[in-house]
Order: sequence, then C-alpha cells, then structure tokens
Amino acid sequence: MKERRLIAELLRPLATSRAARGLADDAAVWQPPRGRELVLTHDMLVCGIHYLPNDPPGDIALKLLAVNLSDIAAMGARPAGILLGLGLSPAEDDAWLDAFVAGLALGLARWALPLWGGDTVSGLAHAVLGLTAIGSVAPGAALSRDGARPGDGLYVSGTIGDAGLGLAVARGALAHDGYLLRRFRLPEPRLALGASLVGVATAAMDVSDGLLIDAERLAAASGITATIDLAALPLSRQAAALTPGDVERLERAAAGDDYELLFTLPPGTVPPAHTTRIGLITAGAGLTVIGSDGRPLVPPRLGFEH
Amino acid sequence: MKERRLIAELLRPLATSRAARGLADDAAVWQPPRGRELVLTHDMLVCGIHYLPNDPPGDIALKLLAVNLSDIAAMGARPAGILLGLGLSPAEDDAWLDAFVAGLALGLARWALPLWGGDTVSGLAHAVLGLTAIGSVAPGAALSRDGARPGDGLYVSGTIGDAGLGLAVARGALAHDGYLLRRFRLPEPRLALGASLVGVATAAMDVSDGLLIDAERLAAASGITATIDLAALPLSRQAAALTPGDVERLERAAAGDDYELLFTLPPGTVPPAHTTRIGLITAGAGLTVIGSDGRPLVPPRLGFEH
Repeated sequence: MKERRLIAELLRPLATSRAARGLADDAAVWQPPRGRELVLTHDMLVCGIHYLPNDPPGDIALKLLAVNLSDIAAMGARPAGILLGLGLSPAEDDAWLDAFVAGLALGLARWALPLWGGDTVSGLAHAVLGLTAIGSVAPGAALSRDGARPGDGLYVSGTIGDAGLGLAVARGALAHDGYLLRRFRLPEPRLALGASLVGVATAAMDVSDGLLIDAERLAAASGITATIDLAALPLSRQAAALTPGDVERLERAAAGDDYELLFTLPPGTVPPAHTTRIGLITAGAGLTVIGSDGRPLVPPRLGFEH
Repeated sequence: MKERRLIAELLRPLATSRAARGLADDAAVWQPPRGRELVLTHDMLVCGIHYLPNDPPGDIALKLLAVNLSDIAAMGARPAGILLGLGLSPAEDDAWLDAFVAGLALGLARWALPLWGGDTVSGLAHAVLGLTAIGSVAPGAALSRDGARPGDGLYVSGTIGDAGLGLAVARGALAHDGYLLRRFRLPEPRLALGASLVGVATAAMDVSDGLLIDAERLAAASGITATIDLAALPLSRQAAALTPGDVERLERAAAGDDYELLFTLPPGTVPPAHTTRIGLITAGAGLTVIGSDGRPLVPPRLGFEH
C-alpha cells in the first residue's frame, strides 16, 4: 500500500491547484498563460548516481526540483508547474517518504509551484526520481546555447566546484564542511538571473556536467571558440582553500553539479551582480583553456560525459 | 558513451520539431495552441513490473507511448508532444536501444507526435522508462471521473481481460496466442473514442489497473454506485474460450493493462461503435458486481492497488 498512502496521504494535500484535479483524474488540465511560449524539461535523479543513499530525503526532493528549475532558469523562463515520476525501492520507507514530501512541500512553497500530477511505482532496486517542469516565456525570448558571437564575454554565476567538493565531503573523502555539503545537496536554480538575461545574453545554459564540458557544448552549438581563463574561475572561500593551483582549478571546473548559469554577453554589456567574466568568445571551434601562466593547457577531463 | 550515442545518433534524428531545438538546449520551447487547455500526464514502465525483460524493445517503446496517450484519450484530448525519461541498465545494449528507438519512431509517426526532449541516465539495476505526454482540449471540455449521475449507463470500449491473458502467455503460463500477446504488449490508446466522448460522456477514465478497481474509483470520484453486470463483460473470442464462468470473468475484470475507456452516458444516448454497456449508475456509493445468476457477488480482488 506504499503507493496508495504516498498519493492519498502525502501528495494529494500538496496538489491543491485546480489543474491537479485532486490527483483524481488521468491527467492534469491547465490553462496556459495567453501570449506566452512554454518551456518544458524532464530531468531524473537516481539514488547512487546523482545522490547518495544517506542524503536527507527532504534535500533530495529539493534537489529534484532545483535541477529541473535550473533548466527553466537557463531558458530565461518562469516556472509554472510540475509532474512527478517517483520510482521507489524498499529503502524508501515511510519515514523517508514523509521527509521527502516535507522537502517537496517546502520547495513548492518557496518557488510558488503547483504539483499537477505524475506517477508512482514501487518495487524498484533503487530509487529513480523523475520530474517534468513546465514554465513560460515571452514568445521568441527563450535563451539558447547557439547565439554566442565572436567578441562576446563568457560569464558564469556564483562559484564553481563547490558541489564537487561537497560530494567528496558527503562520501567522507574530505573533512566535514557544511557549506560545501549544502552546495552539493541543495543547488540553487538561478531563476531571477535567467529571467534578467532575456534580451541581454546572446547564449545561456546551466552548468550541470562540469563548466568545461558545458562550455564546450555552448561553443559547439554557437559555432565559435570559447576560451576560459582558469585564473578567473570564481571560487568560494572554502573551495579556494582547497585549490592551490591549476591542477585543482581544472578539477573544480570539471566537477559538475554546480547548477550555475553559463552565458555570453556582447562587448560593453554591464554584467549582472554575482556573475564573473571567465573568458572570451572568438571565431573558431571548440574549447580553449588558458592556465595561470597565460598558456593554453589540455584538461585531463572536461566533466561528466553523457 | 551509451547516453551520448543514444541522444546524438538515435534520439536527435527523431526530434525534428522546432520545439525540440535539436535536443541542444536545456529545455524544449513550444507555442501552445490558442484557446485550448493543456492536458498533462506522466506514466512510467518498469522492467520486470510493467513489462518483461524479453519483451521486444520496439513493443516496449510503443507501450510506453500508448499508456500515456491512453491518459490523454481518457481526458478527451488531442496529444501534442512528449518528453522522455529513460533510465537504462546494462541489459539495454546497443541492439536493444536500436530496436527501442525504431519502435519509438514508429509510434511518433503513427500518432503524429513530436519528441520534444527529456533525459537519459545509464547505470541503473533495471530499466525505468518514464514519459510525459502533453495534449490539448477545448476549454472546459476535458473529461473527468467525477460526473457520473444516477440513471447513466456504464460503458467500456473494446474487450476486457485480453492483456492479462497475454501476460500469462508472455510468462509461458498459457499456450502461445499471438492475439492475446499483442494485446498485452501493444495496447491501443482510444484517442478517437475519447475525443468523441467530449460533451457526451458524463464521466470517463482509462482501464489500467483492472476494470473493477477502476470502476470503483469512478464511483468514488462521482459519489455514486457503479453496478457491473458480469454477464455483459465484453470478451474477445480468444478470451471467451478461456472464460467458462463467473470466476474467470472476475479474473478478466481485475487483470488490468486493458487501456480501454470506461465511461458513463446519460440515459437515451446512443453509444459509440465498439463499446459495450456493462452496467448502470445508481445513487449510493461503491462498486456492485452482479453475477450471471443475477445475484451480487464479492470479487476476490478488484485489480492492482497502488
């Protein structure tokens, strides 16, 4: 009866929007806002791959929301609602489900998001958590990866590498550090920044698999060269203390899970607050990384390939 | 490189709609049709739970589409596009993926559906396949489970119980029968029927967990009693040969996976073709099942509870 309890007792009380129909019908019914385009994404978190079995369940729910909202943010859109696809194993017991749904409730309230519906299945070997997020944007205004032009500056929000170090903390490979752990478990979707980049940024995407590999993807989509100046990599105080040189800078820039925004601005544009210029767009192809000595270097890896 | 190959070589060629943006951005961007409401659903198929590991991969792709389109059909809506959430295990090798995507391509072509985007993850213990389907319907026209009224007739499309028998065939518990096996592996979403019920049916839903349990849910949502006359249960020729009496009829009606539409029509309404009147709506609550001798009986089970 796990699924019935989950839906009836835990999820239905959260599905208060008219569109959700009390989770009683086969699908949700939603009137989209007039004169807007819709932005649609689906991202999954898998236990043991994207989070650790002992991560707090409430944080997992918030991360599931955040990684999807990060995609909405990267398009410059405003989130409108979500569908859940929860595949559960015996490890997700009643206490886990209670804590997961409490985190979900927090996130829905925080981002003013309705839960519209979805599906739950139990009996899996390990949890597989999917979420579909739908948002809206003014017609033609959605950001994309393909508009970077030679001469544009390359920018990133926040700091890079904290989440990768936080994963090492969670695994016990690094001394406990609450800030780094939080950055791994509770990424912050940059919704306000994404919305502010509409009509300003020439290209944008979120950094999920690693700054270097994601910058390479932006370069490929735009048909330009992205050059990253490693010395400019924005590091938190905690990460900086663990990053004495370029070897470690390359590790931070390939760690992934940052959920910051990577974007390009035409020359002369004043960048938004809490963003850092990390490089330049030039004619050509691919990614170039410049070390602290001013010379190009070849990163041992760029991020998570998939 | 499984995910990269899957996306670049197999899925990208299918994602030809403008909304998909070549699967190159963080999300799809879609202009919804003016003056329509949207219908949104997400259903999952899990290897070993909803399908068998040896089922043909192309059929699994078609079933993943069909079970979601069945929800769209149950709302009286027209499908508009999909997002995929593919969680893969080592068992889904290159040959499996090729066949799965070939089936997906068939289904997308058949239902004129664009693939908008989604997510793929490998490294799972067994495959977990999610799909989000989005459709549209005239404002206020979506069917729901809650409108059945005393005096309405209770109807179901097609035949009931074939898929449950087909599962027994697939498991080797029943002699090979191509028709029954196909009914298990390749359910048919009743999109045309669902659309034709808009403005006509007082309540509708699809039969996924078992006719009896789904009828009980319709009764609960509508606040009425649904009475099913077992003698009227529509059976295929193949199922009829395996259904000598009420014991077996109850098994067919609790087997699930039919993906037929269950709906109610006001008295005097001419029912659509290929549908059967199986009972009556009266004031009260819950489900009543009448046996072939005209007396109520208590089913040992109603379907799959979750």
